Amino acid sequence: MNTTNLTASELEDLDRRHIIHQMHRSDIHDRTVIVKGKGCLVWDARGNELLDASGGGVWHSQIGHGRQEIADVAAKQMAELEYFTGLLEFSNDQAIKLAVRLAELAPGDINKVFFTNGGSEAVESAIKAARLYHTRKGEPSRTWVLARHASFHGSTYGSGTLTGFPSMHFGVGPHLPDIDKISPPYLYRAAELYGDADPTDYLVRELEETIERIGAGNIAALIGEPIMAGGGVLAPPADYWPRIGEVLRKNGILLIADEVVTAFGRTGQWFDAPTRGMDPDMITVAKGIGGGYTPLGALLLRDEIGEVIASEEGFFHGYTFQSHPVACAIGLATIDIIEREGLLERAGQIAGWLRDGLAGAAALPTVGDIRVEGSMAALEIVTSRTTREPMGWTQVGALAGMVRGVHKVIVRPYGHNLVLAPPLIISEEQVRQATAAVIDIVSRLRPDGTFAQ
Amino acid sequence: MNTTNLTASELEDLDRRHIIHQMHRSDIHDRTVIVKGKGCLVWDARGNELLDASGGGVWHSQIGHGRQEIADVAAKQMAELEYFTGLLEFSNDQAIKLAVRLAELAPGDINKVFFTNGGSEAVESAIKAARLYHTRKGEPSRTWVLARHASFHGSTYGSGTLTGFPSMHFGVGPHLPDIDKISPPYLYRAAELYGDADPTDYLVRELEETIERIGAGNIAALIGEPIMAGGGVLAPPADYWPRIGEVLRKNGILLIADEVVTAFGRTGQWFDAPTRGMDPDMITVAKGIGGGYTPLGALLLRDEIGEVIASEEGFFHGYTFQSHPVACAIGLATIDIIEREGLLERAGQIAGWLRDGLAGAAALPTVGDIRVEGSMAALEIVTSRTTREPMGWTQVGALAGMVRGVHKVIVRPYGHNLVLAPPLIISEEQVRQATAAVIDIVSRLRPDGTFAQ
Repeated sequence: MNTTNLTASELEDLDRRHIIHQMHRSDIHDRTVIVKGKGCLVWDARGNELLDASGGGVWHSQIGHGRQEIADVAAKQMAELEYFTGLLEFSNDQAIKLAVRLAELAPGDINKVFFTNGGSEAVESAIKAARLYHTRKGEPSRTWVLARHASFHGSTYGSGTLTGFPSMHFGVGPHLPDIDKISPPYLYRAAELYGDADPTDYLVRELEETIERIGAGNIAALIGEPIMAGGGVLAPPADYWPRIGEVLRKNGILLIADEVVTAFGRTGQWFDAPTRGMDPDMITVAKGIGGGYTPLGALLLRDEIGEVIASEEGFFHGYTFQSHPVACAIGLATIDIIEREGLLERAGQIAGWLRDGLAGAAALPTVGDIRVEGSMAALEIVTSRTTREPMGWTQVGALAGMVRGVHKVIVRPYGHNLVLAPPLIISEEQVRQATAAVIDIVSRLRPDGTFAQ
Repeated sequence: MNTTNLTASELEDLDRRHIIHQMHRSDIHDRTVIVKGKGCLVWDARGNELLDASGGGVWHSQIGHGRQEIADVAAKQMAELEYFTGLLEFSNDQAIKLAVRLAELAPGDINKVFFTNGGSEAVESAIKAARLYHTRKGEPSRTWVLARHASFHGSTYGSGTLTGFPSMHFGVGPHLPDIDKISPPYLYRAAELYGDADPTDYLVRELEETIERIGAGNIAALIGEPIMAGGGVLAPPADYWPRIGEVLRKNGILLIADEVVTAFGRTGQWFDAPTRGMDPDMITVAKGIGGGYTPLGALLLRDEIGEVIASEEGFFHGYTFQSHPVACAIGLATIDIIEREGLLERAGQIAGWLRDGLAGAAALPTVGDIRVEGSMAALEIVTSRTTREPMGWTQVGALAGMVRGVHKVIVRPYGHNLVLAPPLIISEEQVRQATAAVIDIVSRLRPDGTFAQ
């Protein structure tokens, strides 16, 4: 078939015929075929200009779309060396340079890098690294990994089992054994989750009870996002990570910070963990590290952990395209741009603009909570501000669809949250446009889930 | 740290300090830092020119290194649209065009495409798709997936559990439940594996017994490589896949062809499965689809299976960078090059050159078997041609190291096999150079594992 000059409706039809989409309800037949991007704008095949307030859809776009500078870096590296394996004793200069840069940026003695092609693979690697570390240190019984409900860690069997969204587990089990979940820090739902207890007191006690039940000597690690992004931009109380970390250390349990969303400026820092008093042994990164210009991820490890997993017969685990020189060159260029254009600082400004722009939503009957952290914002959509009953996912999906259809602004549904996570280069004017669009549409949503015109 | 002008030894030192390598023994301190590639040649940081007879290290390089044409395609697409998510109802023109192309090339009614960033993710998706298919078809008890010893399917927990190399499972368990393994078709070891039985008779009976034991109503799928690459280029008897397929069909068990290595010309076909009488319900691809210029993979599915997993609430499974427009544009350009340069036909020629070049190895005391399939060859290294005892992995690793050190030719150890898998653009002269290098070094290996000078 000649596919050189397809119309928008031909593209949409071919998409329906051939592509399986992630998380896509079969009763939605429309397609939005994006064909062009520049800065914070993208265009679909029908010629619609859309404001991307979603960071490329999955909070991965830090530096905006269609940058010629990155295209030039990629082309130059591709013509020089596109890829040679990074396994065994092979390496390449771009992977080494990016590893050095990551070690400089990462907190403390986190200086070892294991490259992957994305977040799921990084989390898989973290589980294996944690278990192998304990095995080599003489505690092979430490196999359990703790995660939290409402967390997102990936989609492969290891990372997906850690993920705290039951819909991801339907019909595809059984899942990875020796995983357990504890409650998230979710202040808007503190009363229903923790009763009268102080949230951190409750959560620390729950962790201690979980360790008691499973046995400290059976637990390898706990994994957590510093801020729970996919759960709806849930920031923990200030004493949460310090106190959780203390319990883990006391019990010889490693702490893995999943910074796939938060690292590289999303919250105004290279890494968010230190800001939250989190002192991780390993950090997973992906998404923003290459600005979306390439699949790229990594597991970063404390020197001692890296040395142990690389000892003896080494780490029999990895991926074909890991340490990809083109991906690593793009990673280096992305970090340069974040630095040169002051995008860490910009994330803080964007937070202010988002708060201002969304303030008007606080009075809407279906908005339970508004949470802003750096260049991320979630509106928690409820059927009642009294009962705090979550709105149905279908309605929140429809909200996002209407924001796009009516106002040409792209925001994302995450469960019953409506989320904004614009590129870090967005302007104040564009934030205003996005937040006004959201407020206009959300204000039409009635508590019963129907829409006013 | 300023990393602009690092010497070779500085690069090597920084690599040792910062990068964790896959499958890398800690007693090997040397590093080969590849910095440039062109055609079938690559160069390391020390200035050595090396002939790549390994297809980029992991049989992924079909079209050779450093192609300006691919760099141009990638740069153009990156400046136009680097990435916008492909989840929910979002798509992009490059993903659609590649999906159309894949549907045209894939056998039978395999017309649905689920993009991933590599082979491990594709296999994870296949497991989930098989289980979800049966769940939605009213058979949720069909959760077991069968694989084969000596198979390689990936490194994440799902794909890694399917992989039939125990070293990959050491110290990182427990693994995914409801996986079982059957024997591989391994003709060189037929006597020890199957006794006096006809290999296919034996293997079909073993499969039937396994189904009997687990219960057909509990089994979702069997996954297999048409030719087992990582196991040492093991081609099955001609009646193997037809008869295995018949047993599976009779029992309602899906067949997944893992063509991550074999597809896109490695054996002279777009897809190898039909050549072997294999009629799969799903096919996993990666590696060669983008020639190594980008991380890219896909799960291809029969229409009916794709429709079932996309029905109702859809497929709650996927990856951030899937359907990446730059990766898909590179995939399209790679397929164009394979077609335009006649590389499918070339694989057949390379097979002839490899057979001629390696014929002299048949008489060597440590060479048990020589197997060639398209642009892949394995020498099975043994301590005795009588007992067929496999040589130690360390010695075979040392063989590969010496081929590189002495003759500047890159080949790969896979367990106790020494493997060649050159790019499909390799010349007859270069194949001669590679095979001569291999024979020279292997002829120095004594049955006791020491080397003559």
